Formats: sequence, structure tokens, C-alpha cells
Amino acid sequence: MEEEALEYARRAHGDQQRKYTKEAYIEHPKRVAEIVRTVPHSSEMICAAYLHDVVEDTPVSIQDIQRKFGRKIAGLVEELTDVFTKEKYPHLNRKKRKQREVERQAKISVEAKTIKLADVIDNTHDILENDPGFARRYVPEMIALTEALQGGNFQLLMRACYEVECARKVLQQKR
Amino acid sequence: MEEEALEYARRAHGDQQRKYTKEAYIEHPKRVAEIVRTVPHSSEMICAAYLHDVVEDTPVSIQDIQRKFGRKIAGLVEELTDVFTKEKYPHLNRKKRKQREVERQAKISVEAKTIKLADVIDNTHDILENDPGFARRYVPEMIALTEALQGGNFQLLMRACYEVECARKVLQQKR
Repeated sequence: MEEEALEYARRAHGDQQRKYTKEAYIEHPKRVAEIVRTVPHSSEMICAAYLHDVVEDTPVSIQDIQRKFGRKIAGLVEELTDVFTKEKYPHLNRKKRKQREVERQAKISVEAKTIKLADVIDNTHDILENDPGFARRYVPEMIALTEALQGGNFQLLMRACYEVECARKVLQQKR
Repeated sequence: MEEEALEYARRAHGDQQRKYTKEAYIEHPKRVAEIVRTVPHSSEMICAAYLHDVVEDTPVSIQDIQRKFGRKIAGLVEELTDVFTKEKYPHLNRKKRKQREVERQAKISVEAKTIKLADVIDNTHDILENDPGFARRYVPEMIALTEALQGGNFQLLMRACYEVECARKVLQQKR
């Protein structure tokens, strides 16, 4: 099942690339799944980690995921898919959209929070290494998001705090 | 009031020294109070930060603090004073005592948790700089404690996670 989820995500993301590194997009969900594997997890969580950006960034729908992988995994992917997107809420600015998103994420399941923490760890590391300019906008958003993800696995919360705090320190030094 | 609490703590700690740096003990509560000042706080929290080790490490009692500084500050200092000490619980080993202490600290007030997080930040930084050997025992205890302190100020939780994660990384590299 995990192999299938990885291959499904690989095909769905196709030739999409990561913004900064230009590596194949699938490398990011692969790293997120590997981070989730370092703490107590279920096979469904690993599948959802592979699939976590598929609905947000490709034409695949939650219904497609449910038909292929069942309700549990589709439920996790749905929790991990942004609701307050620019497309659906064009009247809200980025700040407002991120705020609503954080309020939503504070209420997702412990499993989904744990996967989202792994996502924060990988994304923050990536942005700090590759786009410190964006960090100015990104760091306050990540602080708010990480605060909302309390209740997820504590070891990953700690690692997420470490990455975000590293990014915050770099910003501070620049001033 | 804050100046009085600082002077009271300075006199109570007398010529006690910090374990590693051999600086005057009062420098530690002073740093803890300064960390608390970086986030939303009350004057009582600053006084309790100055006084947080007085009952644990000197002959001063909670009643002494209450007579001099009132119930609010005495209450915070009491929450910040270890209950499961070697002296009072000689039949429990260090691991058991720390476990009980963590269970207790998970239930203290948000204000006390915030001060305790500042204490974790300063102590962890200190031990990492000065006694990496002790870190092997200390780091797992600090992970458990920081987990229990969720609910305290999130910015300080984040900084505590950063310090503990730094210490954990140093340990890992040594293996």
C-alpha cells in the first residue's frame, strides 16, 4: 500500500519541481514520510504523507484518493489540504487566508498534525537554505502554524520548533 | 517590588555559586527573569522568576515569601519548587522522582509554566556549554519536562525546544 501511494503521488506530481531546488517534487513528500517514520506512526499516515500535496497541487480529487486508498487515508489527505486558498477565497488577502487556515489546522486529528509537523520541518529547512528573503514573511506564519499543531507528536513538534527558531534567528541577525 | 524580590533572592542565595560557571547563583534567576520579560508577563511573574529557586535551595520557606511578597507570588514560587526531592522521597530513584515531578508540572498554571520554560532555556544552554557529559541524563529529562510545559507561552516553548534539540543533536553526534 505504501509503495502504491508513493507511485501514485509520483505520477500525480509528474514533472512538477520544488520551487527552490528544482528537484522532482516527489522528493518532498518522500522526506515528509521519512520524518513521520522516525516517530510512532501507522501505515495510513505514511501513505497520507506521500499523498499530502496531491489534492492541493494536482488535478487529483479527494474522491479519487478515497476510491483508490480508502476513507482513512483520504480523510488524512483532506485534513492536510489547504481550504482557504487564493482560488476559493480571492476576497481574502494572504494574511487572512493563513489565519483561517491556522484556526482550521488547530482542530485536525493528532495523526494529521504529526504529518503536518513533518511538512513544516522539511519546508522550513528548505526555505531557510534556499530563500532567506521569503523567510521574513514565512517565519511568522510558521510560528503560528506550529503553535496550532501542538497536540501532534511532541518529538516532531520539538524538531519543527528547532527549524523555525533557526530561521527566526537568521532573520534577526540580518536586521 | 521587582527590585525587592531581586535583592531578597540575592541575599537568600548568599555566596552560592552556579555549578559549572562558578558565577554568583543570582545571575541565573536574573537571566530567567529577563527571558520572561521578552514575552507578555506580569510584575508578579518577574518577582517569582527572581525567587524561583529560593525555597528549593535556601532555608527560606513559602511562608516567608508569602509574608513578604503576598499570596500570588508565593503561589507561583510554590508551583516552581520541586516536590519530589531526594530528601522527601529517598525511596524513589532519580528517574521516578523526575517522572512524578513532570506529572505535577503538567498541571501548574500558565504563568508558572512560562517561568519554568525560561528556567529550562537557561539551564539547558548552561549544561550544553559547560557539562556535555551530564547532557546524556539531562536531555531526556528536559524533553519530558518541555512536553509537560505545553500551554505555557508558545514563544518560550519554541526557544526551550530549540535549546533542548541543540543539546540532543550534540549528544547524537557523539555516538
